Amino acid sequence: MNQRTEIASLGEFGLIDHLTQNIEFKNASSILGVGDDAAIIDHFGRQTVVSSDILIEGIHFDLSYTPIKHLGYKSVVVNLSDIYAMNATPTQILVNIGFSNRFSVETLDEFYAGVHAACEEYQVDLVGGDTSSSQKGFIISITAIGEVAPDQFVKRSGAKVNDLICVSGELGSAFLGLTLLEREKKIFQETGAQPDLENQKHIVGRLLKPEARKDIIEYFAAAEVLPTSMIDISDGLSSDILHICKQSDVGCVLYEDKFPFNDDAKEFAYKLQLDPTACALSGGEDYELLFTISQEAYEKIKINPSISVIGYIAPAEEGKHLITRGGNKHELIAQGWNHMNK
Amino acid sequence: MNQRTEIASLGEFGLIDHLTQNIEFKNASSILGVGDDAAIIDHFGRQTVVSSDILIEGIHFDLSYTPIKHLGYKSVVVNLSDIYAMNATPTQILVNIGFSNRFSVETLDEFYAGVHAACEEYQVDLVGGDTSSSQKGFIISITAIGEVAPDQFVKRSGAKVNDLICVSGELGSAFLGLTLLEREKKIFQETGAQPDLENQKHIVGRLLKPEARKDIIEYFAAAEVLPTSMIDISDGLSSDILHICKQSDVGCVLYEDKFPFNDDAKEFAYKLQLDPTACALSGGEDYELLFTISQEAYEKIKINPSISVIGYIAPAEEGKHLITRGGNKHELIAQGWNHMNK
Repeated sequence: MNQRTEIASLGEFGLIDHLTQNIEFKNASSILGVGDDAAIIDHFGRQTVVSSDILIEGIHFDLSYTPIKHLGYKSVVVNLSDIYAMNATPTQILVNIGFSNRFSVETLDEFYAGVHAACEEYQVDLVGGDTSSSQKGFIISITAIGEVAPDQFVKRSGAKVNDLICVSGELGSAFLGLTLLEREKKIFQETGAQPDLENQKHIVGRLLKPEARKDIIEYFAAAEVLPTSMIDISDGLSSDILHICKQSDVGCVLYEDKFPFNDDAKEFAYKLQLDPTACALSGGEDYELLFTISQEAYEKIKINPSISVIGYIAPAEEGKHLITRGGNKHELIAQGWNHMNK
Repeated sequence: MNQRTEIASLGEFGLIDHLTQNIEFKNASSILGVGDDAAIIDHFGRQTVVSSDILIEGIHFDLSYTPIKHLGYKSVVVNLSDIYAMNATPTQILVNIGFSNRFSVETLDEFYAGVHAACEEYQVDLVGGDTSSSQKGFIISITAIGEVAPDQFVKRSGAKVNDLICVSGELGSAFLGLTLLEREKKIFQETGAQPDLENQKHIVGRLLKPEARKDIIEYFAAAEVLPTSMIDISDGLSSDILHICKQSDVGCVLYEDKFPFNDDAKEFAYKLQLDPTACALSGGEDYELLFTISQEAYEKIKINPSISVIGYIAPAEEGKHLITRGGNKHELIAQGWNHMNK
């Protein structure tokens, strides 16, 4: 970017006006948006679903290889993913950001271009938020709001013995994208060599511009399937299935040979001498939906090519296990990305 | 505090469990809380009110003189104040925090003790949030959710010519508390002398442990008064009345001799050679409610000793002015605390 406008030249209220101009509501539930002490929402008899996340530069993202427009898009998407994981439809977001004086108005414009693109793609309204300077780095806190018909929401705690364990899309690719970008960053720092992304657009895209599984929730509604439990995969399959098991007080069996991988991603994993299964179990950031269904619902699920059945729910006393391709049985342990230990 | 437990020893999920154990819901609208991908809320036909703020160490608060339990309390209260400013009743909060490795589990416990105390005082439920490490300092992002009967919410944009301008409580005291604490911090840094707060508990309390004006909203309901516009005073009376004027497309006249001050605070202002009126206009952080009412509502308002009438709404073309005690007329300008310029 050539131009650099200092944020202080607009002031806080001028900046908010600048970043939130021309918002047109897409949802009848958005009664009042940006510009007052609070937003007003009316879900007209449906229940309100709320989730909030904080993302901090240097902990959750690295601006040295993350285009800030993609960061804006992804920040929204990962919050919407939490709403979908309740079997709900997102309708509004509030965006809080903090930024040091290294950021210009043009950079924030890029970030909000990504935010607005996600709002457009998922048909949600930006109804509020806050901006502040920070002492260091870029800080994002997004609250996503959605709606669901009463008693149609799906918790983590409803999985029953013999239910089938299903996952949408593919696993492990985002972690491979991260591994590649971190490798190229290190090479650049050490040698100055330009990044060689080896045409791995797919895995890089899975990390930098993930999508939330709106289509799966719409499929559930159309096929009249109500999962017994659901979670989105943010910390890795292993960590997230253990959340379902703990909160449902059950065990599980997963089959390695049922894990869905992207062919190119799998091939690239081998090239990096990484085990695709380990990437799926511990990688995280896939933002796929992991859910359980009763066996009776199987006929309705199997025709959707985006859904894989990867195991079943077992009694709690049988523990949580992975059966490998070779037939070996391993205990599942939580070893997902843990932002606390970074 | 004597004990220091490292946060990494609990892990992210262990920490969330630790900080959110034993939560009992106070509101029927809280259907599902902490422990899933999102919270579920049902306001049963009332509209949902949402506001979110971000507070960053070194920008919004200084832990060298702010007890962290008070910070937890205040972080909640300032968000609830935004809900009250819509003439709504807060019902839930979500709390996101980021913290560097200088913070221990015991320190976070203190912070959450303040959060829980505010939840108790204002009868709101903690239903979600996120925790993360940060590269530097303490970061707080709180989302407050409330409810209001449809069409009973009060915007900033409804003030009409000849409406009376009213304010709750007292003005300028929090700024005096800040001035005192900053003075003592500077003396301590330069000389090592222990802070002398001169028994100014009142103004220090107004800064460190403000309360939101729940009572005023309850009074409106009981007296059947619906303000024509409302805002909470976070940036100073001048900046905040200008928001109402801009969004209502009106002017205003304020009378200095009508401004409500606390006697001790006023005396202390003179001692510091500060003008109490300037503190009221530009100080900020009072978290009082500033609102307009029709002249017909005056009889219902005047009997409440916590409400002062400080001026009236004028036509836009007459501008925005302050009439001083001496009868001089000054144009009001926005010069509140601006966190962007710090």
